[in-house]
Amino acid sequence: MKLFDEYRQMTEQALIPMLSSLGDIPSPLWEAMSYSLQGGGKRIRPVLLLASCDMAGGNLSAALPFACALEMIHTYSLIHDDLPAMDNDDLRRGQPTNHKVFGENIAILAGDGLLNAAAELMAGSAVKMGDLRGCRAMEIIMRHAGVTGMIAGQTEDVTSEGQPPYEDTVRYIHERKTADLLEAAVEAGLALAGAQEKEMAAGREYALHLGMAFQMTDDLLDVTGNEDKLGKSVGKDQEQNKMTWVALRGIDGTREDAHREILMAKEALASLSWDTGFFADFAESLQERKQ
Amino acid sequence: MKLFDEYRQMTEQALIPMLSSLGDIPSPLWEAMSYSLQGGGKRIRPVLLLASCDMAGGNLSAALPFACALEMIHTYSLIHDDLPAMDNDDLRRGQPTNHKVFGENIAILAGDGLLNAAAELMAGSAVKMGDLRGCRAMEIIMRHAGVTGMIAGQTEDVTSEGQPPYEDTVRYIHERKTADLLEAAVEAGLALAGAQEKEMAAGREYALHLGMAFQMTDDLLDVTGNEDKLGKSVGKDQEQNKMTWVALRGIDGTREDAHREILMAKEALASLSWDTGFFADFAESLQERKQ
Repeated sequence: MKLFDEYRQMTEQALIPMLSSLGDIPSPLWEAMSYSLQGGGKRIRPVLLLASCDMAGGNLSAALPFACALEMIHTYSLIHDDLPAMDNDDLRRGQPTNHKVFGENIAILAGDGLLNAAAELMAGSAVKMGDLRGCRAMEIIMRHAGVTGMIAGQTEDVTSEGQPPYEDTVRYIHERKTADLLEAAVEAGLALAGAQEKEMAAGREYALHLGMAFQMTDDLLDVTGNEDKLGKSVGKDQEQNKMTWVALRGIDGTREDAHREILMAKEALASLSWDTGFFADFAESLQERKQ
Repeated sequence: MKLFDEYRQMTEQALIPMLSSLGDIPSPLWEAMSYSLQGGGKRIRPVLLLASCDMAGGNLSAALPFACALEMIHTYSLIHDDLPAMDNDDLRRGQPTNHKVFGENIAILAGDGLLNAAAELMAGSAVKMGDLRGCRAMEIIMRHAGVTGMIAGQTEDVTSEGQPPYEDTVRYIHERKTADLLEAAVEAGLALAGAQEKEMAAGREYALHLGMAFQMTDDLLDVTGNEDKLGKSVGKDQEQNKMTWVALRGIDGTREDAHREILMAKEALASLSWDTGFFADFAESLQERKQ
């Protein structure tokens, strides 16, 4: 097992070469896609995919295209979420959002392009792997990212704005918008290593609670965070009447719930026979999250 | 081999069940996706995929999810092309466009959802097939639909509006926006049947010329067509200063070029040992195209 920053470094170095390996992408599509792909971010999803594959004894270089594909999916979702017709955000990680730089039409196409590129990259890698593990990982990732997963969460998010927060709805949104791609990361990483179904189920359970804790701390940071560190405006959720965990439970209640989710994430690791220290530490680190 | 309408019927009957097989899709995402998926259309791409697979002795029911996925990709591209930030169209096939009915935010998500659903459906089917043919077909389809294919064509289309028509640019746009998904149909259909590379190359060549002829006759219909039959306004290309073949060559020149592309499409079939009558007839039928 490597450190978080080592998996992150692997991803950072591979993202642009993987995109350009697809062939001759016309300008300004290339510029718009690479702008957002290089826009920083914690790279949590690809790191979790690589670490899961590594923990289960899989091949890291075979997993790298899937890790990059997952980050491309996350990036496309941010570009489309920021559009004027959606959250209408001007800043993302301290930089102008994609449509502010390239215009709405190119931003829509750059989002479509990154989603398509993710699937193309995974399908090509799956063919090269020569067995069905790549295909399985791709199915897992597309399912969690799709119309019963992340896109379902985003739909519920935009349609429930301005309504009073109900726990069922907030949970539905957070599980799908946030936890689903983390589940995809862990489950696909394990699938690529040829793990068994019960191991993948434990990984999914871990990632679900990790995702809930992550989103709860995200909601907290929107209220209590430091704009400079976050690279985005705070107070935006409240301004847009978003359904957040803080709106539901308040600051102290959200802190307690996040703590409980972190404990549950760590408990889910117990049934796994590998060294799960990396994953326990990562869950623990959310307690101290500043950005 | 079946008739065009029989392959079309197979597709029509499968589209909605395939979408709902993905699980519990929240309203209004489900309504928006199924609205556009059921919006009619000629279903040329899935028909070509099924017919190619059938011609080469493949299994039609295994090919059906890939045919539906291809139609989902075509449908998502229409939803996003019609958006206010793109072509800003109010009508599509005589019906209000997706964003006119469901709003821009849901239309963006419905497009994303259909593209994701296509990849999810194919990946799931590829796993079930148990060998790499499904994986290969998926790679072919995502590549032609992607950032070096259809999305590249759309990018060039939106960025070249208002410029004088150059043959290289018009050809680039038509080959990618239109021919690429037809190539995907034929090539993926043959791949699913386990055809050889040189057979797939001949199929691609056929579909390239078919696609060019199809787009040329489309450009002609925008000038000479009947609004009622087409279900859309005519003269729109000229109004938007689109790069069309008619703008480049005039009406008579475009008729001649379309005729030549149809001949080249039929010639490409010569090297194939199967009964290619279906494909020759389809190319021929573009000569008489009214909608």
